[in-house]
Amino acid sequence: MGRVTTREPVLKLGGGAAGGGVRSRDTLVAEEPLEIRIAGRQIAVTMRTPGEDFDLVAGYLVGEGVVRGPEQLARMRFCGDSACSGPIGLGDDESGHSRIEAAHDTYNIVDVDLAPGVPVPLWSLDRTTYTTSACGVCGKTSIEAVRANAHWSVQSDPVRISPEVLYSLPKTLRAQQKLFAQTGGLHAAGLFTAEGEPICVREDVGRHNAVDKVIGWALRADRLPLRGHLLAVSGRASFELVQKASAAGIPLLAAVSAPSSLAVELARESGMTLAGFVRGESANVYCGTQRISLPA
Amino acid sequence: MGRVTTREPVLKLGGGAAGGGVRSRDTLVAEEPLEIRIAGRQIAVTMRTPGEDFDLVAGYLVGEGVVRGPEQLARMRFCGDSACSGPIGLGDDESGHSRIEAAHDTYNIVDVDLAPGVPVPLWSLDRTTYTTSACGVCGKTSIEAVRANAHWSVQSDPVRISPEVLYSLPKTLRAQQKLFAQTGGLHAAGLFTAEGEPICVREDVGRHNAVDKVIGWALRADRLPLRGHLLAVSGRASFELVQKASAAGIPLLAAVSAPSSLAVELARESGMTLAGFVRGESANVYCGTQRISLPA
Repeated sequence: MGRVTTREPVLKLGGGAAGGGVRSRDTLVAEEPLEIRIAGRQIAVTMRTPGEDFDLVAGYLVGEGVVRGPEQLARMRFCGDSACSGPIGLGDDESGHSRIEAAHDTYNIVDVDLAPGVPVPLWSLDRTTYTTSACGVCGKTSIEAVRANAHWSVQSDPVRISPEVLYSLPKTLRAQQKLFAQTGGLHAAGLFTAEGEPICVREDVGRHNAVDKVIGWALRADRLPLRGHLLAVSGRASFELVQKASAAGIPLLAAVSAPSSLAVELARESGMTLAGFVRGESANVYCGTQRISLPA
Repeated sequence: MGRVTTREPVLKLGGGAAGGGVRSRDTLVAEEPLEIRIAGRQIAVTMRTPGEDFDLVAGYLVGEGVVRGPEQLARMRFCGDSACSGPIGLGDDESGHSRIEAAHDTYNIVDVDLAPGVPVPLWSLDRTTYTTSACGVCGKTSIEAVRANAHWSVQSDPVRISPEVLYSLPKTLRAQQKLFAQTGGLHAAGLFTAEGEPICVREDVGRHNAVDKVIGWALRADRLPLRGHLLAVSGRASFELVQKASAAGIPLLAAVSAPSSLAVELARESGMTLAGFVRGESANVYCGTQRISLPA
């Protein structure tokens, strides 16, 4: 966990400290850039908390509509600045981290080889026409782009949950957040069964990264599409998070905070259930209310 | 303000509602894509809350090191899908919005003409080598890239503030947040004098957008560099936000939540004061503590 948090000096003011403050040390969440390449070509750079980087990359590629099964990823490896060095098999990123801690700068680039026959996304060939699937020139074209990319439909997913299960998700998520307690600086995303059992919880400085890490974990475990599953996030529900959930075939997204207009619009068009302000024993359900079992 | 919020149907569960929930309507913050172009070429797409779009674009360009004064922006205008139509002068975006509400899809692309002699950034010419200044392959190169881009140094800024002014910033910011009260879904950024007086407060679904809108407003008011000023943000302090503050010459950044490791590192290297967890009557100051006036 050496790269996941750092200790920094801090001057603590107020809160019972003496007038001049107290010099102390604080645990901070680590943030470092990760460059994602396909066949040696840069396609994205994201600022993330190191760890589970192969999951992050895999999940990112699911969200962008590039892959939908583990067999479509031939190889992922960490690269140095100049060339890819020391290929590391799919699934070895954690051990790779601990083995070569000193050379950790080389663990900020992941190069992906897609399996033969998997189309290399156009935007990695010609960045001058680059638009992510979260892009477009209006909300409507953004939604159309996401729907055109969708491998699975969540519309017909028959899963139903009780309000109690919905209310339990943020509490379970928070209880599983190992780093938040230390740093107070993390977003979290968690994948749950319809009974509210957590399957995979991830934390990151970036909320989109936390979701990518969860979905990438599921892809690599060959669990896509995630029919009948629930995704919970610790913050707001943006368009981008609904898009990522939809790309993984998840029928219900629960957020602790508010959704945006476009998040609701995309969820509704995708047939997804979107809940916001899931706090204590209350929640707002913006669409897909048929998946909530209410007393008659 | 028609595009800044929307009203959506919602099923409210719990919180005193009947067992079957209550059908109601909720005000949501609007989120739409904004495409930024320089001389007709796409350089970025961001999901933002519509409004103050020219400020957003100007602030984005300050953060990327492209411009540092209003004279470097020859023109900004909204474009339609195919071609730029109906040039709108610098500063007319708000009135433009209200005039042509029905055709609002064409208000999601802003094309910028830089003044003669202002170098067009390389990354707008060749997207295959695109890296934003927030990018690199490790934290160190990210910091070096930001420092290489810096037009001003905040190191020598002599501004000093009392802990009481520091504590007051989040409260003043929140009091100025018109939309948060309605939607609960907004990030905010505010520019303050050293006495804690708010000068410009902006809200957006994206916290980087809120900061861009503040800094772009200052650029267009010809107030850069923002020596002696304070920037407060409603959430976490990431590397990217420190970078944007530094690019505008702001010597102090105060965040309500936690900073990341790389945010502290960049602030320290830049000579900026970074405070986190500014809540109630307490705060953590991670670097630049000489700017906080403490009782002897």
